[in-house]
Amino acid sequence: MSTPHPDAGHLPEATGLALKTVQAHVEPQEVTLYAAWWCPYAQRVWITLEERGIPYQYKEVNPYEREPHFMAINPRGLVPAAEYKGQALTESLAIVEFLEDAYPSHAPHVLPADPVARARARVWTDIANKTVVPAWFRLVMATGDDAAAQAARREELYAGVRALMAEAAVDGPYFLGEQFSTVDVALAPFVARDFVLAAHRGYERAEAGERWVRYARALEERKSVRETFSDKDRVMKSYARYLSNEAQSEAAKAFRVGKAF
Amino acid sequence: MSTPHPDAGHLPEATGLALKTVQAHVEPQEVTLYAAWWCPYAQRVWITLEERGIPYQYKEVNPYEREPHFMAINPRGLVPAAEYKGQALTESLAIVEFLEDAYPSHAPHVLPADPVARARARVWTDIANKTVVPAWFRLVMATGDDAAAQAARREELYAGVRALMAEAAVDGPYFLGEQFSTVDVALAPFVARDFVLAAHRGYERAEAGERWVRYARALEERKSVRETFSDKDRVMKSYARYLSNEAQSEAAKAFRVGKAF
Repeated sequence: MSTPHPDAGHLPEATGLALKTVQAHVEPQEVTLYAAWWCPYAQRVWITLEERGIPYQYKEVNPYEREPHFMAINPRGLVPAAEYKGQALTESLAIVEFLEDAYPSHAPHVLPADPVARARARVWTDIANKTVVPAWFRLVMATGDDAAAQAARREELYAGVRALMAEAAVDGPYFLGEQFSTVDVALAPFVARDFVLAAHRGYERAEAGERWVRYARALEERKSVRETFSDKDRVMKSYARYLSNEAQSEAAKAFRVGKAF
Repeated sequence: MSTPHPDAGHLPEATGLALKTVQAHVEPQEVTLYAAWWCPYAQRVWITLEERGIPYQYKEVNPYEREPHFMAINPRGLVPAAEYKGQALTESLAIVEFLEDAYPSHAPHVLPADPVARARARVWTDIANKTVVPAWFRLVMATGDDAAAQAARREELYAGVRALMAEAAVDGPYFLGEQFSTVDVALAPFVARDFVLAAHRGYERAEAGERWVRYARALEERKSVRETFSDKDRVMKSYARYLSNEAQSEAAKAFRVGKAF
């Protein structure tokens, strides 16, 4: 989850392939996705809806003019949120699991059918979410003022990625192998945005190993990931306040002080 | 999850009601629970097996003599672990979810049947796990050397508990209401051990509000919780190295520096 960040005011809507996807999802449906085009947590839910062919309406949440109905179902105003038959859902990975439970007949699934494989997917989704994602945020907020600290953040991210890749299916292309799963859903939005780290933080995928290079490419090339991603220059602009370490999203505030989010 | 801690060497096995439960689960079954009697994370899985009436074999993992078969299926040697048809499972909450998936016909369940209610249970289980549990560990490790720091840790725990209780079913007795759910499973082992905080850290349940007092009592009085809990004096002894802030379990090491676990 994430609160809209103050910098998003002048970048009100999706662009590029994501805009086309938004335009194809304006009609009311059983599921409404409340999202912000720039939010990686919202993209997790969006990717899942696209992957699974679940009918949904996309609603962009304007951080300055949150509509009364959205605030009524979701008082904290966080995105992503979803509405299903008048009931509110929050937290990206919980919504992804909800979609598995509520739409059991919509293939493909993002969790394996076998209970042991499902458990393994959940364990690694959780580990990715609490190691790689915080390290990603801490690196993007590590200004060049302290080069040693920035280098330590980079190593923290590489270490998290390497530990994860040591458990990934060798041939891939995805974490579990052929199936695109919740592990991939959790990571893909951050991989799609890592050009920000490459441009400003000295990050190179190859430093985290060849398996990560292949994996990251598979994630960013996935149709559902591309079609929920806006133009790169707009995405880059959306990180201006992170790059200057002034971001005030809930994720930024938590990860800056090393807390869980 | 948690590694066996060095202090457990002279306290090799369960006592009291927990010992009776161990003795009733010595025969091989489809599920083997690898646990340590003193580990709150292992107790989560144990509670769930008892709640749901799933046949299981209990195996105490001796931290000094881990049996070769256990290390073969679970190289990091962490408890809790489970074995199901020769396959290893790790991470307490993932094992609890696994038991829902693998034993769909064993009532009662610890997740609601309705997808929206399930999502809500998962959200609050996750929040309890990443706010209340770390605060619990940080308080138990806050020695009296710095009284102000200890008081701050106490407030951190109360704040986490109050935030959680603000979302709990008003009448209870459990978090979701009548159903004993994953939220309760996640918290019960820590509630059952909070007499350690009361004896050594100035913690009082009433400081976190009347709802918490009622909730904590309901959890510690639950049959499955009592029957998987050892004698209090032994549990107290198992926290000696936490109370002196020397504990080296994975949880202790992570929470001490404010990391997610």
